[in-house]
Amino acid sequence: MKVITSDNLTETVLDSFSRCTDPRTKEIIISLVRHLHDFAREVALTHEEWRHGIEFLTATGKRCDGIRQEFILLSDTLGLSSVLDAINQRHEGESTQSSLLGPFYRDGVKEVEFGADIARTEGEPAVFHGRVLDGDGKPVPGALIEVWQTAANGMYEGQDPDQPEGNLRGRFKSNAAGEYAFRSLKPTSYPIPTDGPVGRMLVATGRHPMRPAHVHFRIQAQGYETITTALFSSGDPYVGSDAVFGVKSSLVVDYVPQEGKEPYFDVERDFVLLAKEQT
Amino acid sequence: MKVITSDNLTETVLDSFSRCTDPRTKEIIISLVRHLHDFAREVALTHEEWRHGIEFLTATGKRCDGIRQEFILLSDTLGLSSVLDAINQRHEGESTQSSLLGPFYRDGVKEVEFGADIARTEGEPAVFHGRVLDGDGKPVPGALIEVWQTAANGMYEGQDPDQPEGNLRGRFKSNAAGEYAFRSLKPTSYPIPTDGPVGRMLVATGRHPMRPAHVHFRIQAQGYETITTALFSSGDPYVGSDAVFGVKSSLVVDYVPQEGKEPYFDVERDFVLLAKEQT
Ligand SMILES: [Fe+2]
Ligand SMILES: [Fe+2]
Repeated sequence: MKVITSDNLTETVLDSFSRCTDPRTKEIIISLVRHLHDFAREVALTHEEWRHGIEFLTATGKRCDGIRQEFILLSDTLGLSSVLDAINQRHEGESTQSSLLGPFYRDGVKEVEFGADIARTEGEPAVFHGRVLDGDGKPVPGALIEVWQTAANGMYEGQDPDQPEGNLRGRFKSNAAGEYAFRSLKPTSYPIPTDGPVGRMLVATGRHPMRPAHVHFRIQAQGYETITTALFSSGDPYVGSDAVFGVKSSLVVDYVPQEGKEPYFDVERDFVLLAKEQT
Repeated sequence: MKVITSDNLTETVLDSFSRCTDPRTKEIIISLVRHLHDFAREVALTHEEWRHGIEFLTATGKRCDGIRQEFILLSDTLGLSSVLDAINQRHEGESTQSSLLGPFYRDGVKEVEFGADIARTEGEPAVFHGRVLDGDGKPVPGALIEVWQTAANGMYEGQDPDQPEGNLRGRFKSNAAGEYAFRSLKPTSYPIPTDGPVGRMLVATGRHPMRPAHVHFRIQAQGYETITTALFSSGDPYVGSDAVFGVKSSLVVDYVPQEGKEPYFDVERDFVLLAKEQT
């Protein structure tokens, strides 16, 4: 019988997966176990500390329901979601960079015309416009663009019973020249949910829960990779410390004041889609 | 504003903990995040795979209740509990090695006399005896010894409505010479619970759920470190492949047949306690 010692314990655990028939599953579990063990040894984790860890993970699972997904929030706040984003984006630098989808996307929004106003609540009016382009700078007509953002109170329609149906949610197509335009409000920064285990983690580690103001975009077109991204407001106090690490400098835009004009702010921004790889 | 790229993303996340005022919390979260990110990059984890991971963690949290703790079971089956055991045991090699407490320990068992029979069900009778010693080999009288084990059907009292109250659970003290003795049954191997996420993980990775037969021991004495350990049966088919990695070769004992005698099996084993560090 093999003598298990502190030194060969990890190898013994890794060996236990030798009969795993799916090579990808095996690769993932072996890397995961190795890093878990390395973490525990590196910090010399105590039984008492791990008991807290077990309680935290259990509470995180119990906080999940049909609406709230506390493990995704944990993944977001530990930067893991953004790491996945980074390693899974093809051709970084050529297409518009991606950002987190977040929990507030909603399907089934009514399609509106070029230039329509999607705000049903008060705030600082802004117009957003630009083009959808391919990798060669040529217009992509008929691209489906979906946008969603917070109202002046920092809440999304769906979170807030006081907002009218569909407020600050848009769904429209780029025109023959690849252009899009819509009228909306300047978005507001907001805290991620803090009334659960993730909120306690942020407090315990000295972090704030704020996301800088942003407008989410999802853009789909036949023959192109779908992009999920967001435009962040330059000058926002949290733009350099997003609680979920979704900001990239290429996604920060200026709200340019239009003195004496209505809407007051102008935001211009093009999006670049990548052609789908032939399969 | 700092430009977040795939290359400095992890450092940006680690920097976010710079205001953490508790140095130990900071040390732990920084190591954890670094290993999590390294894991994701090492295997180039996809969004789809991580979605499965999130679902697995959520289901694991939801499977926990007052009796069942699926995250501890996960920690056990990934060998993490045994790693903690190894890194937290003082003076490995001097005292009796430790093994996992497991979920079946129960408090409030009635104390019995030296040599008492703790079995209320049928099986292969065995007598267990030996001494409790200190690091210098001197007897430790009055040590409180608690034992618990499975019945012939592989279940613990408490899991199995057919077993009488207190079956195969013992609580007794070492005598003036440091000796203990009790009569019981030869224990049986058993599967860990497989009707939850951990069971699905074992199936997906080609592993069996069995623990080799063992008797749990917890030994406490004034002025000594409490030890939690178990004695495993030599010759058990699973002694080299414990589903929770609790077996150490120093904890494997022989059930010596006593031809024509009753009880049939004899198990002799001493335990060595370490004096508590002065604080
Ligand atoms: Fe958002
Ligand atoms: Fe056990």
